[in-house]
Amino acid sequence: MIRALQLFGPKAVRLIVRVFDANWMQIEEYLRRDDRVVLPTGSTEQHGYLSLGTDAILAERVAVEAAEPLGVPVLPALPFGMAPHWAAFPGSLSLRMSTYIEVLRDLLDGLESQGLRRIAIINGHGGNMPVAGFIREWLCQPRPQPVQVIYHTWCYGPQVTAASDQFDREQAHANWGENFPWNRLPGVDLPAEPRPVVPMEVIAQLDAGRIRAALPEGMMGGAYARPDEDMQVIWDAGVAEVRKVIETGWLA
Amino acid sequence: MIRALQLFGPKAVRLIVRVFDANWMQIEEYLRRDDRVVLPTGSTEQHGYLSLGTDAILAERVAVEAAEPLGVPVLPALPFGMAPHWAAFPGSLSLRMSTYIEVLRDLLDGLESQGLRRIAIINGHGGNMPVAGFIREWLCQPRPQPVQVIYHTWCYGPQVTAASDQFDREQAHANWGENFPWNRLPGVDLPAEPRPVVPMEVIAQLDAGRIRAALPEGMMGGAYARPDEDMQVIWDAGVAEVRKVIETGWLA
Amino acid sequence: MIRALQLFGPKAVRLIVRVFDANWMQIEEYLRRDDRVVLPTGSTEQHGYLSLGTDAILAERVAVEAAEPLGVPVLPALPFGMAPHWAAFPGSLSLRMSTYIEVLRDLLDGLESQGLRRIAIINGHGGNMPVAGFIREWLCQPRPQPVQVIYHTWCYGPQVTAASDQFDREQAHANWGENFPWNRLPGVDLPAEPRPVVPMEVIAQLDAGRIRAALPEGMMGGAYARPDEDMQVIWDAGVAEVRKVIETGWLA
Amino acid sequence: MIRALQLFGPKAVRLIVRVFDANWMQIEEYLRRDDRVVLPTGSTEQHGYLSLGTDAILAERVAVEAAEPLGVPVLPALPFGMAPHWAAFPGSLSLRMSTYIEVLRDLLDGLESQGLRRIAIINGHGGNMPVAGFIREWLCQPRPQPVQVIYHTWCYGPQVTAASDQFDREQAHANWGENFPWNRLPGVDLPAEPRPVVPMEVIAQLDAGRIRAALPEGMMGGAYARPDEDMQVIWDAGVAEVRKVIETGWLA
Amino acid sequence: MIRALQLFGPKAVRLIVRVFDANWMQIEEYLRRDDRVVLPTGSTEQHGYLSLGTDAILAERVAVEAAEPLGVPVLPALPFGMAPHWAAFPGSLSLRMSTYIEVLRDLLDGLESQGLRRIAIINGHGGNMPVAGFIREWLCQPRPQPVQVIYHTWCYGPQVTAASDQFDREQAHANWGENFPWNRLPGVDLPAEPRPVVPMEVIAQLDAGRIRAALPEGMMGGAYARPDEDMQVIWDAGVAEVRKVIETGWLA
Amino acid sequence: MIRALQLFGPKAVRLIVRVFDANWMQIEEYLRRDDRVVLPTGSTEQHGYLSLGTDAILAERVAVEAAEPLGVPVLPALPFGMAPHWAAFPGSLSLRMSTYIEVLRDLLDGLESQGLRRIAIINGHGGNMPVAGFIREWLCQPRPQPVQVIYHTWCYGPQVTAASDQFDREQAHANWGENFPWNRLPGVDLPAEPRPVVPMEVIAQLDAGRIRAALPEGMMGGAYARPDEDMQVIWDAGVAEVRKVIETGWLA
Repeated sequence: MIRALQLFGPKAVRLIVRVFDANWMQIEEYLRRDDRVVLPTGSTEQHGYLSLGTDAILAERVAVEAAEPLGVPVLPALPFGMAPHWAAFPGSLSLRMSTYIEVLRDLLDGLESQGLRRIAIINGHGGNMPVAGFIREWLCQPRPQPVQVIYHTWCYGPQVTAASDQFDREQAHANWGENFPWNRLPGVDLPAEPRPVVPMEVIAQLDAGRIRAALPEGMMGGAYARPDEDMQVIWDAGVAEVRKVIETGWLA
Repeated sequence: MIRALQLFGPKAVRLIVRVFDANWMQIEEYLRRDDRVVLPTGSTEQHGYLSLGTDAILAERVAVEAAEPLGVPVLPALPFGMAPHWAAFPGSLSLRMSTYIEVLRDLLDGLESQGLRRIAIINGHGGNMPVAGFIREWLCQPRPQPVQVIYHTWCYGPQVTAASDQFDREQAHANWGENFPWNRLPGVDLPAEPRPVVPMEVIAQLDAGRIRAALPEGMMGGAYARPDEDMQVIWDAGVAEVRKVIETGWLA
Repeated sequence: MIRALQLFGPKAVRLIVRVFDANWMQIEEYLRRDDRVVLPTGSTEQHGYLSLGTDAILAERVAVEAAEPLGVPVLPALPFGMAPHWAAFPGSLSLRMSTYIEVLRDLLDGLESQGLRRIAIINGHGGNMPVAGFIREWLCQPRPQPVQVIYHTWCYGPQVTAASDQFDREQAHANWGENFPWNRLPGVDLPAEPRPVVPMEVIAQLDAGRIRAALPEGMMGGAYARPDEDMQVIWDAGVAEVRKVIETGWLA
Repeated sequence: MIRALQLFGPKAVRLIVRVFDANWMQIEEYLRRDDRVVLPTGSTEQHGYLSLGTDAILAERVAVEAAEPLGVPVLPALPFGMAPHWAAFPGSLSLRMSTYIEVLRDLLDGLESQGLRRIAIINGHGGNMPVAGFIREWLCQPRPQPVQVIYHTWCYGPQVTAASDQFDREQAHANWGENFPWNRLPGVDLPAEPRPVVPMEVIAQLDAGRIRAALPEGMMGGAYARPDEDMQVIWDAGVAEVRKVIETGWLA
Repeated sequence: MIRALQLFGPKAVRLIVRVFDANWMQIEEYLRRDDRVVLPTGSTEQHGYLSLGTDAILAERVAVEAAEPLGVPVLPALPFGMAPHWAAFPGSLSLRMSTYIEVLRDLLDGLESQGLRRIAIINGHGGNMPVAGFIREWLCQPRPQPVQVIYHTWCYGPQVTAASDQFDREQAHANWGENFPWNRLPGVDLPAEPRPVVPMEVIAQLDAGRIRAALPEGMMGGAYARPDEDMQVIWDAGVAEVRKVIETGWLA
Repeated sequence: MIRALQLFGPKAVRLIVRVFDANWMQIEEYLRRDDRVVLPTGSTEQHGYLSLGTDAILAERVAVEAAEPLGVPVLPALPFGMAPHWAAFPGSLSLRMSTYIEVLRDLLDGLESQGLRRIAIINGHGGNMPVAGFIREWLCQPRPQPVQVIYHTWCYGPQVTAASDQFDREQAHANWGENFPWNRLPGVDLPAEPRPVVPMEVIAQLDAGRIRAALPEGMMGGAYARPDEDMQVIWDAGVAEVRKVIETGWLA
């Protein structure tokens, strides 16, 4: 694997992916030759038997694995997102949309002011996706130099979907399709039998308390797990797809 | 066609669909036996050779035609929506997402406070769709009685899509697929030859000025028009689909 | 009647008043020779026996009739305004002032950005008038080119008031003074006898529920109707006054 | 003059008008027998040759003199208001309307939470008046006990206007009509000859810089001063009118 | 025309300190030779037996006394601040932090736009101090010319603290340390015996009602008063310290 | 070390500290016997030669080590805070105060709604501290059950300060005092000689660009590093102090 972010001259061999593994001088050095950056966005919300951090853990990990060979720095994941529908499941937190918009505005404004001109937001939570409307608004503001923002929800990417579909077409919140080795919990036994899938429409008109009542486990049905080798296939598809986004998703 | 909103006793024959064709006493009378209401949402934005009001005109019309036999009142369309990407085309207006959220909050709060418990938002503009995230947030607020809100973008409904696909799969902003008799403009000649379709992704990273430059006519490609009988088939599918939403889209 | 917005050369005979009857190319063509635009603002609120849309219907209609011979385009009416005092009358909706300000900001910003430099807001609802304070604030922002905004509440215009006073000086919410053929409702019988007028001061300190209790019909007293000929005199005064505003209300 | 706010038993002779002349225990004692309070609102803005604090000084003073015999406590004047049109005159400050609304909300919420149920806002600046729209909104919020708020702009009160009209009907910003002994400045000579009055309409469409250019002295025309005995007549009318508002302006 | 704001010259006789004792022409004249201004900020909140206006009264007074010999104008004190913890004590008012930020933003923006480049905020209330975070944010906005803002809470200044410590190290809310002749109330007898001091930490986790219950008098313990000579020593230290801030606290 | 969060009966041996290592069922189980939670807050900002994530890394780590033996769950660190003064150093990001307040409000509201009644915010960045003013406001809102929030900036805790002072009293941004093994960067050489300390006051009146110019390395002076054994002493003091806060910092 070729790592690109070589710092401090020819002798430097340490390579950086995470912004938290860099200091500002190293980011400044990077900005002399590139203007891309990756911001993973997640959510802290119930995922049935899986980690409450599933969406943040996976988004950050897929971003880091994808960006590493490209030498593009990855910010820490924004761990909180929009998940009001899970409010009745303990441990789930949610930012109001009005708040979430302002957080994204501040981060985008900050990145732009420092010369980042191509920003890839790698999102891990479907509930965050409406913020793409705000990002379009932000992009359409007049500014001296063009800035590009790609908003990519990795788990709904076409390659990830295709990879998943070959195993099981029932992909639902907190079921096997989100059960990766890096967000499943040790010591937590999963039911062996699948549950019937509850369609998203059914819960779309319920408030948080009724959603909790309708989903005793929090997961929305289907199988609970698949073999690790299947999940690795899906994961690899996700990493490849995100890498392609970061590498070639930009306008000339 | 059976019209349901009969007012002032058995002798009354006048029937009401539009809220603007009623007074408050009539709405109060209606509330004694039903709790549904329809809010159409549109946009004032460029649609190539077609009316700047396309999204509002069609959303309001499809809502009215759908609701009429059900006797469910239809509010006036909210004529302004989120369309920052068209800002460089004269006559296009846009509310910021932070504004649009508050408008919807006020309207939903007002309707709820008056006893409307099943609210169907019939949306005519794809760019408005991120507000569905806010509606979920609103729905998940704790409240004494449950309220349901359906957010239905009529032009992307599965029946409308199926009806359109049988004629031409290239459906793009401001092309034939939006060219109905009620929003096309008299005296405006359309080009005879289709344009190549510009994919949405291409303009997703551009600012308003560059989008204008990339789309000289504002329409995004494909054919400009189809025969009225084809459009009527699509329209009928839209009316039927919206009616079904208003009639049976609710949880028990 | 001379219609000014002639499009597409000498052969064009179609004339445009409503923005919704135009496409962006026609507005762009208009902008080459004029920089005026009209925005009607209304409210969706109880008007006793009259239409819930009274303020929006009349504001839009008076604006269109006034602007037509001038060839100045008229936007669709903003149908929702500030009417918290009518909240207990079904069908009344209200935007908070904080929301209403932002809607106006977005619309004014959008119009300014497209080269509209003289904006006439033709308002049909007294409760909206405090937004004039915000418009002054907006006008006083520093900007490269001057922009003018006239905020004209048509129904309180001096000519309209003079025309009304000659018939009956008791003009109150939802009484005869607002009962025009275009917002009265077919099939709704009006009481024959006038009610005593409730002064605005009496309800100014009440909350919405107490206001409802104080005004059983929603109208604030006086006669319910006048002959159509009288109303036409008032209407003509309104159209003439609005036309004068649009035509000559601007600073040199 | 009877002073009502006698504290700490029959021996107490000290009387309180200004909240700043009381401690919380005295206000608590007052709340056992009354629920009224007065909030003066002013502005810090140019008044030609007169004090930049004219609107705050007069509003607070008229409120204190009016409330004193009634024993109703008077809060300190809010010294900043909405005056964007004077921004180009040094020393003028302005709160945006969105800010001003929130300040009033906080003050009203606070007063209500402590049992003040009849709140008289004595306003000294015309530019603040749009906030009355917000106060109506605040009043119409559902609450357990009714609260009344009177918004009275003292300088436009009918008795003040009548008293002024008997001397000179040309009352304009910063001219004689605002020139009281308590806000005129020692050592500042006034021009002897009146200026032509600039109508409010002329400056209504100008931005702050052009307003400054149009009004070299800041005052809007008419005479600069009148004899003290005339001004005392007007002042007495103002005090009497405000006192009546505080004493009898409330609903039963 | 005699201009009153003549400073530092042999001919100068009248001197202006308070902005409310000046007109705009005098401030304009001042701006030709200086760019400093002082904004006192206070709070309207319980201070035990002392005036509800303690923080505003003292901040404004110390600012005026400090600025007078320097000829730097002092704005009227902002009388309302952030004091949610005293909400259960009658007469206490509080702005939410979101409101307070916007008030400060508007005032700073206004001062900057008029050429004030060195702004000293003399604060009299500890609860307001978090706004310093916003001021830093405001200072860090990009702007054409540098602006400096000093945020100085006079009562916690090192010289004031040192002067106080020599008399009594128990300085707590509303005790002797805040009991100056200018904010103590005539006719209000103080307890002779000190109360045990309640540490700030104890009330930091309580809501307003519990804070009230924990502090029957509102003051937080220690002695109630000290001789006037002692208080004058502290006051003189405060005036000197604020003067030094206004005079020499700026970067070159 | 005793680990307390034992789940699923006597056989369960897995122990949880991080919320991201739990699912919602485990948090629900925890809520049956405890109501405490820890939220670390950091910042993404320049720290000279040290990691841009210093404040988030250390806050999360100290919280986890402190909470582990207590079995109190620790949320993921909020990685972004208020750092406008570092905006000119690449990689530094900042939320506006108005944004940061809303993020905290959403998180606190969410935690409260799920039954968390004692919330310890372990903060790692001095610039975030003004939010404590908002937390006080939040605490003072009326609510059915009391909620406690402790806001503890671990690096300024008295025990941490005492531990640091024994080695070197010059503790400044990004110098040795923040140089722990877990946030220093491999392969980055530090200067051997200390720099003179730049006092915080010097940069308090500068904008972001001038701050950058004044601090070529970003660190504010003093020594760059100390031996690991010294840092471990400080760290242990921090862990112990935070543990004490979480364990015994609450009111009875």
